[in-house]
Order: sequence, then C-alpha cells, then structure tokens
Amino acid sequence: MSIPVPPIPSFPPAPFTLTSVTGLRAAGVKAGIKPSGNPDVALLASDAPMVCAGLFTQNHFAAAPVTLSRQHLAASKGLVRAVVINSGNANACTGADGDSNAAEMAERVAKGLGCPLEQVLVCSTGVIGVKLPMDKVRTGIDAALAALSTEPEAGRRFLSAIMTTDAFPKEAGARLDGATFAGVCKGAGMIQPNMATMLAFVGTDVDVSAERMGAAMKRVAATSFNAVHVDTHTSTNDTFLMLSTRRVPAPDTWEQQLETVARRLAWLIARDGEGATKVTTVHVLGAASDEIARTIARTVASSALVRTALFGNDPNWGRFVSQVGNVPAVRQPDKLVCRLQGVEVFRAGEPTPFDRAQVSKAMAREDVSLEIVLDEGQGHALLMTSDLGYRYVQVNAEYTT
Amino acid sequence: MSIPVPPIPSFPPAPFTLTSVTGLRAAGVKAGIKPSGNPDVALLASDAPMVCAGLFTQNHFAAAPVTLSRQHLAASKGLVRAVVINSGNANACTGADGDSNAAEMAERVAKGLGCPLEQVLVCSTGVIGVKLPMDKVRTGIDAALAALSTEPEAGRRFLSAIMTTDAFPKEAGARLDGATFAGVCKGAGMIQPNMATMLAFVGTDVDVSAERMGAAMKRVAATSFNAVHVDTHTSTNDTFLMLSTRRVPAPDTWEQQLETVARRLAWLIARDGEGATKVTTVHVLGAASDEIARTIARTVASSALVRTALFGNDPNWGRFVSQVGNVPAVRQPDKLVCRLQGVEVFRAGEPTPFDRAQVSKAMAREDVSLEIVLDEGQGHALLMTSDLGYRYVQVNAEYTT
Repeated sequence: MSIPVPPIPSFPPAPFTLTSVTGLRAAGVKAGIKPSGNPDVALLASDAPMVCAGLFTQNHFAAAPVTLSRQHLAASKGLVRAVVINSGNANACTGADGDSNAAEMAERVAKGLGCPLEQVLVCSTGVIGVKLPMDKVRTGIDAALAALSTEPEAGRRFLSAIMTTDAFPKEAGARLDGATFAGVCKGAGMIQPNMATMLAFVGTDVDVSAERMGAAMKRVAATSFNAVHVDTHTSTNDTFLMLSTRRVPAPDTWEQQLETVARRLAWLIARDGEGATKVTTVHVLGAASDEIARTIARTVASSALVRTALFGNDPNWGRFVSQVGNVPAVRQPDKLVCRLQGVEVFRAGEPTPFDRAQVSKAMAREDVSLEIVLDEGQGHALLMTSDLGYRYVQVNAEYTT
Repeated sequence: MSIPVPPIPSFPPAPFTLTSVTGLRAAGVKAGIKPSGNPDVALLASDAPMVCAGLFTQNHFAAAPVTLSRQHLAASKGLVRAVVINSGNANACTGADGDSNAAEMAERVAKGLGCPLEQVLVCSTGVIGVKLPMDKVRTGIDAALAALSTEPEAGRRFLSAIMTTDAFPKEAGARLDGATFAGVCKGAGMIQPNMATMLAFVGTDVDVSAERMGAAMKRVAATSFNAVHVDTHTSTNDTFLMLSTRRVPAPDTWEQQLETVARRLAWLIARDGEGATKVTTVHVLGAASDEIARTIARTVASSALVRTALFGNDPNWGRFVSQVGNVPAVRQPDKLVCRLQGVEVFRAGEPTPFDRAQVSKAMAREDVSLEIVLDEGQGHALLMTSDLGYRYVQVNAEYTT
C-alpha cells in the first residue's frame, strides 16, 4: 500500500556535543544487542565524581535500570562517575533476572573505572519483556570502557548508541560566560512490542549543588520533557539525567541556558513522534491555576481529533474548543478565545470570521501555535504535541509483531 | 492515494423499530439542510404525554437544543409529547440566534400537536458554528408533522433522518412479557468542522415513573453509551432520551432489557468509530473501586498506541500493561494479569509465554476482549473502544475544510 511518507527532517549538528564539556569522556560501541548491528552500548564518564540529578518515569512498571539508578543516586548523594546505557533491550518486565542484570552492568563499569558501585547509573531502552543478552552486554561494556574519549566524535558515537527508532539524532547545546551545556536525547521512537522511551542526558561544567540542580531540572522539565505529548504513554524506562563536572562558576542565567537546551531537545522528540509532520505548541493562558492550565493543554493535545486536524492543516476550531469544554474545571467557557498561528478563530461562544484557506496554509509549517486564552486567573501551561497522520498508524500498527 | 478501506459492515435490521412501540408515531423527511439531500428532519410523537428521561452532554459548550431540552424536561416534569430532531447542523456555538432557533423548532411542533411548549424536546446534529437555515427547518417540521405514522417504515425514515456520516443505520430491540423496547442511535460520525455527536432514542411501553426511568438510564449508560470510547471527545450535542407510552406493566427485568438494547446500540456506535475495523471491550476487574476501574479502562482505551495495536491485530501486552502502569491509583502492579481474547499474556510483572500468531489471528475479529485483572478490590468497569487505523486519519484529516 502507498502511504505518503513525510520527509525525514535533518537538523544541523548542535554546536556542542557531550564531550564539549571539559572533563566528560564518552563512548558508543556495537555490542550486537540490536539485530541491525547499529551501536548499542554507550558510556559517559569522568575522572572525578560529577554532581548528578535525575528525573525518572512515574510508571508503576519502572524498568530494572530505573529502580537501580534511583537507588544509586540516593546512595551516592548525587555524586556519579559514570552512566552506562544499552539500546535494543529495555530490561523491563524481566523479573529478578532483570534486577541482577542491571546491577551487573553497574558493577562492571565500577570495576573498570575503579569507583564505588553506587557512583554508576544504568539506562536501557528497547524491547520489553525480553532478558538482556548479558554476554553481548559484557563485551560491549568492556569495549566502551576502552573507547572512552574526550574527542567530539566520541560524543557523537555515544548519541548513536542510545538511539532506537529515532529518525534523526537529537542534540542541543549552549555556551555562556565560559559555561557549557550540551544535551542529547532519544525518543519517541517505538520498539516492538512496546512503547516509547525517552532518555535525555545534559552535561555541563557549571558549579552547582545536586540539590539546586535537582530543583532546576524539575522546573525545566515542566516546560520541556514533561511538556511533550506524543501518544499519552509514559514508558517504563523514561530517564532525564543532568551531570556536571563543576569546573566553572555558575552564571546567574544558568537555569535559562538549561531550559533552552532541554526545550530544544523536547521539541526534537515531538518532531520525531512517529510519522509527525510538525510540532504544535499548545499555550494555555488565563486559567484558574497552572495545574488546571496543564489539564486543559493535555486534554486538547491528547485528542486524536485535534491531532488529525493538525496533520490535515485544518483550522478546526470546533475540535479545539470542544476539548476545552470537556475539562470540568473550566468555569467561564463563554470567555474563551482560541488563536491558531496567531489568528483568532473563536471568541465568546462563537467562531470569529477568518480566512480558512490562509490559516490552513499558515498551519502547513513545522512549528504550529495553538493558543487557548481564558479569563479565570493567572494559570498558564505549555505543551508540545506531534500530529497524527498515516505514518503514525503505519509505524504503530504494522511495525510490530 | 490508496488506503485500505475496511468493508462497511451490514447488520440485519433489528426486529423492532421505534414505531413497534404501541402509541409511538414517527416521521423522517428531507428538508434540504444536508447538502446531500438526504433526510434531515425527524419527529417522534405520541397522542398522550409520554414519560421521558434524558442524559445530556457534560461539555461546557452545550448546544442550544441541549440547553432547551434540559429546561423543557424539568418544566414538564418528565412528561413529553414529542422530540424533533434535525441533522446536518448542530446549532452549537451559534449565540443568541441559536437559542431562539431551537425555541422556534419546539414552538412549531407544540403548535402542530396542540400541546404545551415544554412537552417538546429538540435535538440537533451536524456542523457547528453555523446558524440553522430556519426556512428549511420550518418546512421540514411541517412536512414531518404531516407525515407522522405508526408504520414500521416511518420508524426507519426517522432513523435515516437523524444520521450524519454514519456508515450504517443503528437500531436494536427487545420484547419480553408483552413489553417492547426499541432503540435507534446515530454516531460517531464526524461532520466538518467539528466532532462526533451521539444521539440515542429508546422507546418503550413499560409503565415506569420518570424518576425510576432516569435512575435506570444512569446505571445503564455507565455500561453502554458512557462506555464507548472513540476519540476522547464528547460533543456539544450528545443526548440520550428514553420515552415510554406506559401501556404495559413493567416486567421485573425491564432494566436488563433496556441495558441489552443500549449496550447493542453503543457497540454499533463503537463499530462505526471512523474507519474502525472492530470493537474492543476492555474489562477491568479487581480494582480498588469502580471509579478507579473506569479510570484504568479509559486510560488504556484512550491510548493511540493501544488502539493502533488493536487495528494491527498485535497482541502487544507491553502497550496495554504500561498504560495500566500510568494510572497513579494502581497499588499492586505486580499482581496484574492481562488477557487478550481469553488468552493470558501477562502476569506478575512478566509476559506469559503464548502463541503470538495464534492470538493475533484471534484478534482479527469484529469483537475483541481485553481483560485487565487486578487484586485490589471489587471495582470493575467495561469500556468499548474502536481501533485506530488508516481510515481514522483519512476521515478526520482529509474530510474537513
């Protein structure tokens, strides 16, 4: 059958990769876990302990590496020497064997680097419910330990080894007042027979405590990784780690730099939502609270009707507005204003006359803005969603089993 | 482009239509509201007031006819002579004109039948944000008043006049101990530029009070019309009315008969979810409460990943289980059992070995069963969902603007 395949976007490489951060070494090697033969074991390490904070999936079925990394991060009080990642197998829903396999991965890296066990974190992404092929993983870890390097190419190899069905590599960077932020991530590609995993790593050299770093990550995630909507699923393996070599005094604006990098990475994830042709940023303003604003944004962005309208470049105010009307916490629906690409399409209970063809044309872009404006308070929220087209169905119905 | 179009199912006509209920008269006429020229004004009436109860959309942007029917039902204390319906235009998001147009529709019918205004209810379905073409509506109402008949064909014409993009007519009936239940409905077809509307009408002759009828409808709707998931949207116009001519003593099991009819109608709606190839019934058992069970069922059924897996006949336990894991209220995820078409595919944190090809083949049916079994209490829920295939995208992205 013939499905119109949207062209895979290509983005210029970010100015910095993980190894642009002084003190960071990286590696990415082929261990044979992926049937494709692509790189599948990645390692990020430093010579001295790095300050580290992490955000992990809230899914009840957290994978073995997530449970282990949570424990290690707590035990090491946020001081970490390395993160080891395998792709091609998520080590999720794998029972007690899964736990011991994740532990063995950390042990092997700790032994190789000569550091305490709890200073090594583990991430996995790929197929779930299948035991890790530990022979391959061991060989891969040893090769990665031997390949650790500060070269830019080592950072790129690290990135290629965490990717699964990503259509393009995702990286972003910023440098300010001598401080560097470099981030890479993977997602929201699917691996049969399961769901998307997002892994994101941001390296930096700014000197902040693990506590400040953790607080900043939570705030930043709310408008970046936690503001991405591809298909209402959070996975068993989602992980966002930040690691700092603490070589440079933190500039006042370090948190904004982090947000810029994280927001760009999150946008790239939404852009790669299976078969997506664009990213729509849903802004909700004037809600009674931020929490209600987030509920409205999620309700709108999760509607298959909304997401197919975005795919079809259809300025379909009825679908957008009616989803706001489905949120019980909305109090004054008659005050609602809806704007699409900056053009008002609905106000005070009735559609605003607008040029449908013109707005439709304006929607045929990679970046679409959908604004929902209420008059109930100061609450606001931002959410990035991919659209829902033929390729989404093809990727998710046909590329499995 | 070539999209595999699933064959449109055809179902044998129900043994009874609305006019099988003694005392009910029906009509369906062509008023020219629909560009297609298909029937678009329907009328249901009786010579004596009928006992009536209704359930209406919870959407904040309730359409003018919904607001009016709620008021009339309250003012008439559940005694109703007629329901007038137009299709092709939802009279939603139409401001003050919309309210006066809905009122005029009721007035015209009340005058024609010689009954109090509040004994007439109004429903509309179709395009939103566009004013009703009242000249055509008036002509249509007059023609429908003249055409009212107790003939079986009149019931079928009524049904054809409430349909919009429905792929097939939806009716169901039951007769027991001399009592008759006959139901028709429309949905979940889409009309540009908006969202699905569900209209359902069940006629009967059992002698129950409006109060008992209303209470029974609420219970029955929880496992029928409110248990249908097509695309997370509830519309501005959703309406479920039950009307009784009270000619027959109510058998003890009348509520079960009502449920059988309502469940069948709801199944037909899910079956007609745009481009659907099957209906999947999600059963959640053993949850801490019915409310939590419903949340789990909705979370699973609303996932685009779950619904594409169902379309692809993919026994993708990872997608089903991980969505249960996304419900915060789940307490003992390690006790979860998941069954697909009766075959256990997951238990206690790990996949159960099963024959993928065999289960996939078993899923290639019009009726699929997905069971989520917890061990946290007596809460249960049932939800019927359509799958998400290419036709869904085609219908919703291309058939608009």
